[in-house]
Amino acid sequence: MTIAIINGPNLNLLGKREVDIYGNQTFDDYFITLKEKFDQQAILTYFQSNHEGGIIDHIHEIGYEYDGIVLNGAAYTHTSVAIADAIAAVTTPVVEVHISNIHAREGFRQHSYSATNCIGVITGLGLKGYELAIKYLIDRKK
Amino acid sequence: MTIAIINGPNLNLLGKREVDIYGNQTFDDYFITLKEKFDQQAILTYFQSNHEGGIIDHIHEIGYEYDGIVLNGAAYTHTSVAIADAIAAVTTPVVEVHISNIHAREGFRQHSYSATNCIGVITGLGLKGYELAIKYLIDRKK
Amino acid sequence: MTIAIINGPNLNLLGKREVDIYGNQTFDDYFITLKEKFDQQAILTYFQSNHEGGIIDHIHEIGYEYDGIVLNGAAYTHTSVAIADAIAAVTTPVVEVHISNIHAREGFRQHSYSATNCIGVITGLGLKGYELAIKYLIDRKK
Amino acid sequence: MTIAIINGPNLNLLGKREVDIYGNQTFDDYFITLKEKFDQQAILTYFQSNHEGGIIDHIHEIGYEYDGIVLNGAAYTHTSVAIADAIAAVTTPVVEVHISNIHAREGFRQHSYSATNCIGVITGLGLKGYELAIKYLIDRKK
Amino acid sequence: MTIAIINGPNLNLLGKREVDIYGNQTFDDYFITLKEKFDQQAILTYFQSNHEGGIIDHIHEIGYEYDGIVLNGAAYTHTSVAIADAIAAVTTPVVEVHISNIHAREGFRQHSYSATNCIGVITGLGLKGYELAIKYLIDRKK
Amino acid sequence: MTIAIINGPNLNLLGKREVDIYGNQTFDDYFITLKEKFDQQAILTYFQSNHEGGIIDHIHEIGYEYDGIVLNGAAYTHTSVAIADAIAAVTTPVVEVHISNIHAREGFRQHSYSATNCIGVITGLGLKGYELAIKYLIDRKK
Amino acid sequence: MTIAIINGPNLNLLGKREVDIYGNQTFDDYFITLKEKFDQQAILTYFQSNHEGGIIDHIHEIGYEYDGIVLNGAAYTHTSVAIADAIAAVTTPVVEVHISNIHAREGFRQHSYSATNCIGVITGLGLKGYELAIKYLIDRKK
Amino acid sequence: MTIAIINGPNLNLLGKREVDIYGNQTFDDYFITLKEKFDQQAILTYFQSNHEGGIIDHIHEIGYEYDGIVLNGAAYTHTSVAIADAIAAVTTPVVEVHISNIHAREGFRQHSYSATNCIGVITGLGLKGYELAIKYLIDRKK
Amino acid sequence: MTIAIINGPNLNLLGKREVDIYGNQTFDDYFITLKEKFDQQAILTYFQSNHEGGIIDHIHEIGYEYDGIVLNGAAYTHTSVAIADAIAAVTTPVVEVHISNIHAREGFRQHSYSATNCIGVITGLGLKGYELAIKYLIDRKK
Amino acid sequence: MTIAIINGPNLNLLGKREVDIYGNQTFDDYFITLKEKFDQQAILTYFQSNHEGGIIDHIHEIGYEYDGIVLNGAAYTHTSVAIADAIAAVTTPVVEVHISNIHAREGFRQHSYSATNCIGVITGLGLKGYELAIKYLIDRKK
Amino acid sequence: MTIAIINGPNLNLLGKREVDIYGNQTFDDYFITLKEKFDQQAILTYFQSNHEGGIIDHIHEIGYEYDGIVLNGAAYTHTSVAIADAIAAVTTPVVEVHISNIHAREGFRQHSYSATNCIGVITGLGLKGYELAIKYLIDRKK
Amino acid sequence: MTIAIINGPNLNLLGKREVDIYGNQTFDDYFITLKEKFDQQAILTYFQSNHEGGIIDHIHEIGYEYDGIVLNGAAYTHTSVAIADAIAAVTTPVVEVHISNIHAREGFRQHSYSATNCIGVITGLGLKGYELAIKYLIDRKK
Repeated sequence: MTIAIINGPNLNLLGKREVDIYGNQTFDDYFITLKEKFDQQAILTYFQSNHEGGIIDHIHEIGYEYDGIVLNGAAYTHTSVAIADAIAAVTTPVVEVHISNIHAREGFRQHSYSATNCIGVITGLGLKGYELAIKYLIDRKK
Repeated sequence: MTIAIINGPNLNLLGKREVDIYGNQTFDDYFITLKEKFDQQAILTYFQSNHEGGIIDHIHEIGYEYDGIVLNGAAYTHTSVAIADAIAAVTTPVVEVHISNIHAREGFRQHSYSATNCIGVITGLGLKGYELAIKYLIDRKK
Repeated sequence: MTIAIINGPNLNLLGKREVDIYGNQTFDDYFITLKEKFDQQAILTYFQSNHEGGIIDHIHEIGYEYDGIVLNGAAYTHTSVAIADAIAAVTTPVVEVHISNIHAREGFRQHSYSATNCIGVITGLGLKGYELAIKYLIDRKK
Repeated sequence: MTIAIINGPNLNLLGKREVDIYGNQTFDDYFITLKEKFDQQAILTYFQSNHEGGIIDHIHEIGYEYDGIVLNGAAYTHTSVAIADAIAAVTTPVVEVHISNIHAREGFRQHSYSATNCIGVITGLGLKGYELAIKYLIDRKK
Repeated sequence: MTIAIINGPNLNLLGKREVDIYGNQTFDDYFITLKEKFDQQAILTYFQSNHEGGIIDHIHEIGYEYDGIVLNGAAYTHTSVAIADAIAAVTTPVVEVHISNIHAREGFRQHSYSATNCIGVITGLGLKGYELAIKYLIDRKK
Repeated sequence: MTIAIINGPNLNLLGKREVDIYGNQTFDDYFITLKEKFDQQAILTYFQSNHEGGIIDHIHEIGYEYDGIVLNGAAYTHTSVAIADAIAAVTTPVVEVHISNIHAREGFRQHSYSATNCIGVITGLGLKGYELAIKYLIDRKK
Repeated sequence: MTIAIINGPNLNLLGKREVDIYGNQTFDDYFITLKEKFDQQAILTYFQSNHEGGIIDHIHEIGYEYDGIVLNGAAYTHTSVAIADAIAAVTTPVVEVHISNIHAREGFRQHSYSATNCIGVITGLGLKGYELAIKYLIDRKK
Repeated sequence: MTIAIINGPNLNLLGKREVDIYGNQTFDDYFITLKEKFDQQAILTYFQSNHEGGIIDHIHEIGYEYDGIVLNGAAYTHTSVAIADAIAAVTTPVVEVHISNIHAREGFRQHSYSATNCIGVITGLGLKGYELAIKYLIDRKK
Repeated sequence: MTIAIINGPNLNLLGKREVDIYGNQTFDDYFITLKEKFDQQAILTYFQSNHEGGIIDHIHEIGYEYDGIVLNGAAYTHTSVAIADAIAAVTTPVVEVHISNIHAREGFRQHSYSATNCIGVITGLGLKGYELAIKYLIDRKK
Repeated sequence: MTIAIINGPNLNLLGKREVDIYGNQTFDDYFITLKEKFDQQAILTYFQSNHEGGIIDHIHEIGYEYDGIVLNGAAYTHTSVAIADAIAAVTTPVVEVHISNIHAREGFRQHSYSATNCIGVITGLGLKGYELAIKYLIDRKK
Repeated sequence: MTIAIINGPNLNLLGKREVDIYGNQTFDDYFITLKEKFDQQAILTYFQSNHEGGIIDHIHEIGYEYDGIVLNGAAYTHTSVAIADAIAAVTTPVVEVHISNIHAREGFRQHSYSATNCIGVITGLGLKGYELAIKYLIDRKK
Repeated sequence: MTIAIINGPNLNLLGKREVDIYGNQTFDDYFITLKEKFDQQAILTYFQSNHEGGIIDHIHEIGYEYDGIVLNGAAYTHTSVAIADAIAAVTTPVVEVHISNIHAREGFRQHSYSATNCIGVITGLGLKGYELAIKYLIDRKK
């Protein structure tokens, strides 16, 4: 079973900067933890891009063969009709994740174009949200 | 560790009616499964009400002593400022859950008053969402 | 054949107060007239509550066995997603009635959440609207 | 006692086309049934026009002498301030009827200019709505 | 010099009905007074229609040869893009008149599609507004 | 002279929780102070409910016999058309009170359905607002 | 094969007035050219009206027998729910055409009621748009 | 009979600047012409201020004794609730005048606070609008 | 202790005009009563201006030395960001008062720029509102 | 003569996926057909990108030398101000094409930033729309 | 070369109050620094008013003879159409300056009426913004 | 001291095309002038991209080490939440520059996502805006 994690713009900075707020764990480090936790159950891959088109390209590449996608579109969540269209076009199910609680932030962050075409959304549960999304994708296959 | 599940209006019908859509598992049955799954980790309680005030009363009663609340406010999610205020007033952390993906439904279901005061939201992952929310509440205590 | 009349908040005051405007006929009196008029055709029951949750409870109780519901949700018409969901969940057909013409009142009274899930709406025809709604529910069964 | 039925644009197609949806009863046929049903109580007339101005002219002609008007303005319901003004200008009381439930259709069909100046509205009860409106107009005269 | 007065829907009822409000002077009578007042200065014509298309046809007929048009579009003022387009297409200058003060009425009466393409607007000055508009059209030719 | 104080949802927590913010005076304690202050002038009663319907029931019970109501509808202020209708239906005058300044809070707290049917509103003056409202109700009787 | 061209309000002025802007070719002349171009492929008819109702009547007359309609609703495009309903009611496919680019004009011209029920829209390509629409209707039949 | 002309902000520049657009006639010069034209019928006074408060003061001073006010509030038309309140408070009738056609300008110039409390409005007829307004005020006294 | 009362535009007319509505007590007279009532507790001053700038100037002058300001900004309440900024800039606490209930008036009167920067608001309690505001300012100092 | 076809995000999937809906013809195949059809009249080129910036770069490259561009911006149609600016900056005329009828889809797909700067738009006519756009660009050169 | 600095409401308090936030430099002191810095290049004048009308008067006085105006309209920026009109009426070019970054403040501060008629705007660069604006006005003359 | 200039989409065309409007100075040429002007004070770098993601990547690269960024996001200013997030994530201060006055253009260009996270904005002062922004960044370091 293969599951892709896709992170959108600015998430490459996670754990590298503003360490007092987000801690000094980079997503690369966290990804190692995740792989260990699920190594009996799924093959995980990780992709990050600051480019809207790059994310679309990647969804096209894996979106007919992988068993699940965990997508944190970051800022593109709220502005990209194109990523939402890409999710609708592929057959792999997508679960959307946000680290912070988007319902408790600025008004423009409370609407998600991509969520409409996802199975569901986990928001506000921190990095833990990725783990829960993967667990969900594995369990629903059983 | 004690965790409360609170379900809002019309969720008492789950699994009893429209069984062709939602299956014939009632929430009471599902709750037994949940208790078994977590019996080493947490004491779970369950409360359902069709009354906005009843939900607020219950949040007040348990909201200073329990270790977590999993709340599916159903329709009150979108109309009740009072439940949102109750969540803000108590000290127990709340995770909001929706069975269906509210981002893919009518416009008025895409705004949540209560989510603003919750830690986060899991939406669209079916009954599985409750399990993931409980798991999150247990893991964050560790 | 059984048909339920459900009245929402403040309608218990009808005919008791503001008698110069609404006349001194209480809904209880009017209900006796209605029962007489239809006694060969249907068994009528009457329920009134000022509690949103009370109305939902009642719809759940009767909404799988009665042949029709005549609902005047009063103020909850415009604010209650939960009552609208209850109507969608049960199998008994519902006709919405308003005594006054809601299209000629304040803007917020011109939108009805519940009407979306009803068969139709009769508004502005006074108490007569209840009689016409019952007649409709009986005739459609023929 | 004289009561006029006025139908707006596209309602001339009723029962002639899309017979699988609306049945093969034309409004002319239905009008014969209506006249028979009420022949002891009222003289009924029928007028249909696809022209906004034609409807206004007809309201002017009969609107000071008839005892009631049953108006289904169809699409003009939502756009015609002029028909609404005509209703306000005449003295005959008007009951608005819609065959389908306008509250369950597109947003722009949920606002009615004409309803503001009518006694009330019956919507969603099919052709039956015309009969109930006539019954109401007769009964209120008693 | 030739000037046309064009009145929109429902204005044919003026002075005939609701005489306690508007007086018992019909527009035909008032038109005689107007013709007398300006008989040395201009030839006046009068046209009234309840048909949006009829008003457009009339503007086309006279709108390249007359010296001025005084238009009271009544309810079409607020809904007719087509009449506004007709005014833009012809060469005769148009002054818009309203008998009542549209700024003191319902919100939807405060926007005028046609006024955008007129020289100006006189509103709220009663029938006197027609006289002032004609006077303006004559004086600007001097 | 009899005056009722009615408090809406979550106000039962006042002075019991979040004591660092609101102090450790419960509303019950404060109510004793109020009764002492006005004991020569008025009989005060106190009612609190987290239920919208409970508040409506209470307004109906006392709203034809008491000389004044001081209402802090809390969150229901902004969502309850039904409470607003109840105030309009009874004859006892109502003064609305808010402890915090609702004009300096979230947008959805700046609109009050109930205030429309009250005599006036006192907002932002803390618990003192209740005292001033009672004083007003007593003085206007003189 | 028969195809109807229907032009809405003010389009009768084309080529007769404002010749410096639109040239001196009338639509009647252009229609002769169109008929010649397609004379081996289709019988073309042409209808123009300034009356909303007239256009609806014409759609009803031909809308069950013709093979295609090319509709330029002009100003009624943006205001007529009734013409949109007429298109939905008939079985002949409709292609909407606009001479100017409606996306580059006033805001109220950017919304089309009728387009919702058409196959598609060609806008901004001048008179050429009619030719392309006819070509499309012929080719799709092949 | 006494009539006051009140001009709002920036109108002191009229005829002094931008003479290629507005001509080189100052309002003072035009006022002399106006006085001559009406010298048998009314005493005219003229006041201009760039200060919102100055205009209110002046309306208070004359607004109980003069027979009419012709007000061109200029930019304050669209932003001043205070001037609108002043007009409502005094007893002298006010006619609002605008030199340019405010319906053909920016959106924010199409709403007038003051017009709501005036008898009517003349807009777009140039300086001639003042003359027509005075004529109206004189004629209505006859 | 010194407290300033500041009244905004048109309030100089109070009690002088429209005496049948507001009574014949001028604010100057009422101010004498107020001074007598509080003469043991506070020195009161009174300032009224129809000029937005005049009110700002006055707030600057007293706003660092007085113990309280009671402000009725009248129409400027709804349009003046500048007065709201002035209140934020000074250190004297401000209580906003409105004689009528602004929640029961036109929509544009329901928003207050200045209230955001005040301690609180008393609205709808008539002239009594000033007295209660002063009482509040004195009591909070104790 | 040279004409470029530019396709936006997700259109690379055309004919490869969801073949039951869109058929199994890829755009590359269709492009061969197009080139054959027009080989005597124009040189066609084809470019597709999922990257907003990639489309802008391509418009810059060819937008001063080609004779026409046929652009299907897909999802970027509705969100990209930058592509709209690019069209405005170059000199080659652009015709916008959409395969489906954007007027019959979600609200956010009915507004086009790019259309404002194009000559015109063809929407809803399927792949045929590309052919008609090319034909238009060739014919206008004649 | 002469350049005027005009400051709007509440800016007279700068450096006198809230010194912990804005420092203890008054604008008068800062103005001396500015004059020294530019004394070889321009004559600077300074005007401040809390009165909207006072600012308009001043713009009229200098707006045909000075070589540049640096305007910080403060709160009037967002509410004054009249100042915007004054800028449009004069011939001296105006650069708008704001000390704080208006894009990072409340929504109502993000719209500027006056900026529309200015050359440009400098916002958020503190007092330095005035210096840069003057430098710009001098350099553009070279 | 190092300062980066970052230009967004379409700005690579500056000075190359539309030379009659923008002059024939390319930004590369202008950048040479800028470097000369500031060569004693700062090291300047220049980066342009039509790709939203490219701009984000570049901000990440330099945004922790440079002393200042001058950003002209062009069209992305109004649509990119992702660039705004990038600015918030880095530590280098950013000044936003626009060549034209965005307040005098289309409505959608008047809102800036990125400006919220910048120190300030200079708009409408042409290429000069870049120089002033650099000067500001140097001076604030002193």
